[in-house]
Amino acid sequence: MNGADLLCDVLLANDVDVCFANPGTSEMHFVAALDRKPQMRCVLGLFEGVVTAAADGYARMADKPAATLLHLGPGLANGLANLHNARRARTPIINVVGDHATYHLKYDAPLTSDIDSLARPMSQWVGRATSADDVRGKAEAAYVAAVRERGVATLILHADAAWGEATAQTPSPVTLPTQPDFSRDALKAAAQVLKGGGRTALILGGRAMRADALDLAGRISAATGAALFTQRAARWERGAGRVTPQAVPYPIDLAVEAFKSFSTVILIGGRTPVGFFAYPGKPGDLLPQGCEVIELAGVEHDLFAVLDALAGEIGAVTTKPAGIHDFTARDLPTPTGKLTPDAMSMMVARALPEGAILVEEILTSIGKLGSLAPTMAPHDHLPLTGGSIGIGIPLAAGAAIACPDRKVVSLQADGSGMYTVQGLWTQARERANVLTIIASNRGYSILKGEMRNVGVNDFGRNARRMLDIDDPALDWCALAKGMGVEAVRAESCEDFARALTHGLRQNGPFLIEAIL
Amino acid sequence: MNGADLLCDVLLANDVDVCFANPGTSEMHFVAALDRKPQMRCVLGLFEGVVTAAADGYARMADKPAATLLHLGPGLANGLANLHNARRARTPIINVVGDHATYHLKYDAPLTSDIDSLARPMSQWVGRATSADDVRGKAEAAYVAAVRERGVATLILHADAAWGEATAQTPSPVTLPTQPDFSRDALKAAAQVLKGGGRTALILGGRAMRADALDLAGRISAATGAALFTQRAARWERGAGRVTPQAVPYPIDLAVEAFKSFSTVILIGGRTPVGFFAYPGKPGDLLPQGCEVIELAGVEHDLFAVLDALAGEIGAVTTKPAGIHDFTARDLPTPTGKLTPDAMSMMVARALPEGAILVEEILTSIGKLGSLAPTMAPHDHLPLTGGSIGIGIPLAAGAAIACPDRKVVSLQADGSGMYTVQGLWTQARERANVLTIIASNRGYSILKGEMRNVGVNDFGRNARRMLDIDDPALDWCALAKGMGVEAVRAESCEDFARALTHGLRQNGPFLIEAIL
Repeated sequence: MNGADLLCDVLLANDVDVCFANPGTSEMHFVAALDRKPQMRCVLGLFEGVVTAAADGYARMADKPAATLLHLGPGLANGLANLHNARRARTPIINVVGDHATYHLKYDAPLTSDIDSLARPMSQWVGRATSADDVRGKAEAAYVAAVRERGVATLILHADAAWGEATAQTPSPVTLPTQPDFSRDALKAAAQVLKGGGRTALILGGRAMRADALDLAGRISAATGAALFTQRAARWERGAGRVTPQAVPYPIDLAVEAFKSFSTVILIGGRTPVGFFAYPGKPGDLLPQGCEVIELAGVEHDLFAVLDALAGEIGAVTTKPAGIHDFTARDLPTPTGKLTPDAMSMMVARALPEGAILVEEILTSIGKLGSLAPTMAPHDHLPLTGGSIGIGIPLAAGAAIACPDRKVVSLQADGSGMYTVQGLWTQARERANVLTIIASNRGYSILKGEMRNVGVNDFGRNARRMLDIDDPALDWCALAKGMGVEAVRAESCEDFARALTHGLRQNGPFLIEAIL
Repeated sequence: MNGADLLCDVLLANDVDVCFANPGTSEMHFVAALDRKPQMRCVLGLFEGVVTAAADGYARMADKPAATLLHLGPGLANGLANLHNARRARTPIINVVGDHATYHLKYDAPLTSDIDSLARPMSQWVGRATSADDVRGKAEAAYVAAVRERGVATLILHADAAWGEATAQTPSPVTLPTQPDFSRDALKAAAQVLKGGGRTALILGGRAMRADALDLAGRISAATGAALFTQRAARWERGAGRVTPQAVPYPIDLAVEAFKSFSTVILIGGRTPVGFFAYPGKPGDLLPQGCEVIELAGVEHDLFAVLDALAGEIGAVTTKPAGIHDFTARDLPTPTGKLTPDAMSMMVARALPEGAILVEEILTSIGKLGSLAPTMAPHDHLPLTGGSIGIGIPLAAGAAIACPDRKVVSLQADGSGMYTVQGLWTQARERANVLTIIASNRGYSILKGEMRNVGVNDFGRNARRMLDIDDPALDWCALAKGMGVEAVRAESCEDFARALTHGLRQNGPFLIEAIL
């Protein structure tokens, strides 16, 4: 067996059986090895940003990592923006990046670059397999780092490590280190604050955003009056029958307003809330002066156990959780006439099927979806986590591959959608059960708002040339057709309602271009 | 004036008047400043890989740098693969990357990342402007680095440096340091070798690939029997009436064969030839054992002056250069029937107009174009320089913006074309005079060859799933239409001939999908 075979065996022994790939010459031995392992599912992306975002979407839903296969520094570079999002989502990914044979590096051949320097900013772990017998140890370390530290582990695989002969061996599953225990002192401090009656907020993230953990958070909230918040959680089980934390608003003034009355925040998988960007004269830390922060637990802890212990500590285990809604979105009225973000959001809220996966990269055309969410059928919500636009189309493909029995509805802005538009082809190739809704407003609307925030209200030619994308107008139906995805345009509420019904009935990719 | 205004002024004072951009929130003050400078031409790319490749194509043809505008680490990351190519092309680019306000970095807000670590591998120079008054010095240093060191200069612009008040000032053009002188000792050594009569090769690159410099190289060759070689030069003035060096072959065995008889190579803007990739049991250094390398001059030198001095030294100034062809491609026969790479290349060779810019990212479907090149009408050849695929479509857009009076013909493989397919939109928006020819063979053919090189001849499901892109087949006419570019499909030589005539007559973007 060669090093590439050994790498496949390590991955499969640890139940990593999907590889999102865009290989090149230096990875041919790994491709040949994958070809000898039919139990590995290989999914091609026509661009590496598709590969990494699909791996993110897959892992968010499968609760286990996929591998990627990327070609040298430039292939990794193309995947970095969505690895940035995965890093912020704390998604486990085993990123396999080919490199030249060790002895070839000295020639500085055209495709040579400093892969470590490129990988480090977006990776929790970076390592190099420099020989065939080095592969198993490095691959297992990458797996452990991805799963236990919840992050991107980048394994650089030299070509001669892939093609070199390895000692014959049969990898077995690695024993993961146990999850770290959370601090009992922090638990006591949190419980004391919650019982003390001050204005307290829990900031939830990671697995605290699953329904069972949210139920516990809802009990704590009902018993103590504590508020529940979240910021761009990677996967949020939400909808009717579930406890719904408040999402921290994106606009800086609203975000400051949301926290101004709190004297304590307790972090349970979430982070201290900060402004997405800096603005002249506005704060970066969203918490009021003097607000105490208790770091109870991070994504590396067993967050269900943390919430369970906290609920026990304050005697809230049997308290009925507050703020749970029925599926009332089903009764929303039927909007008519001109298609608007509000109208679109109401129709989606009403029609979203139970158990759907809702991918959201829609930014300014979100309409009422945020406020309607608690009244929609129970679903998983997968947002843009790291602010690096261009994730939605491939994230939806990856989620669909992880959950073939669930409908994926992907709400996608047009500007960000163009970044990884190639992901539609992967949806078509994999017959992914994804309904993509393109909110076509033909501009970077979020940036127009930000221009106004910096005091520019009249846009000249240069500003318009950088913020409008209406010349020429993108034809999303043609783009979808070009990549094998059936599509239809909706210019009115009536069009959209028909298209939505049709698209939800398809068992495969479909796209609606919603002209807003 | 604020720092962003000052940056615009520095750029304009140094004749940098095109900015390829994809901005975000942290760059809004720079966008507002650009909006106050109508003399700056702002060109939007819908993805940053388009932005950086267009800046490369522009600078290769304009002989001066453009600026780019990229959004934080992820925006830079998306542009890195084509910056890698620009770095290998030694193209001057002033890469402006926004970053958070200096005081905001400590919050590790979602879009924060280590921009320096990302920038360094693909940049000749990296600097940060940390205040408004720091902008001018850093911007001027970036300009000098880009032009004098011929490379990518990445200027990280903090948001508070952009919006902060700068001391009022009027930037003037910077004084560039003089070009370094080449070594007279090396010149003497080279001349001695050339006069000695051993087998000698000149490896040319950079400005040695312009017609006037090639003419001198041709005289040296005619006088001494020296062979002329080049490897992926950024811009090659070639065609009828011009001296044509031999391109080093990509296949490793042919490349080794090409150099096996030489006892000396002299580098004049070129680099020591090395294998693109390592292969088991094959050499990385293409030169035979004991071959002497004389490093006469690099791209930082005045290569015309070097060749002129060398020709003078060996008394070749008046020697008639050898190996010059007439425009005989015009007499090529008209192929008929099934469209093949050979047939396509013959039709392109015959029809390419004088002064055209030929962008080439066609890899395995190149046909006879390489051997026909010396007999074609004089043209500029812009190839993929760094091996990072996905450059052609936006490179063509940038070249067209630099040279609005010349026809750009862009030969593009389908697999690599998908990487930055969004560049078609920029072509349409800018009414770029580009004829794109997509060689649609629906597979990563180069990788299929490389798989055979590693000994795999029967591809299983996984290999096919990673190397074929025929399921679904891409519809390039639909993709082009989706981005506002008129397109036509050619399935036979007759179709292609008609489409080529039509496409060359257009004064704007047009695309031919050539089904091979």
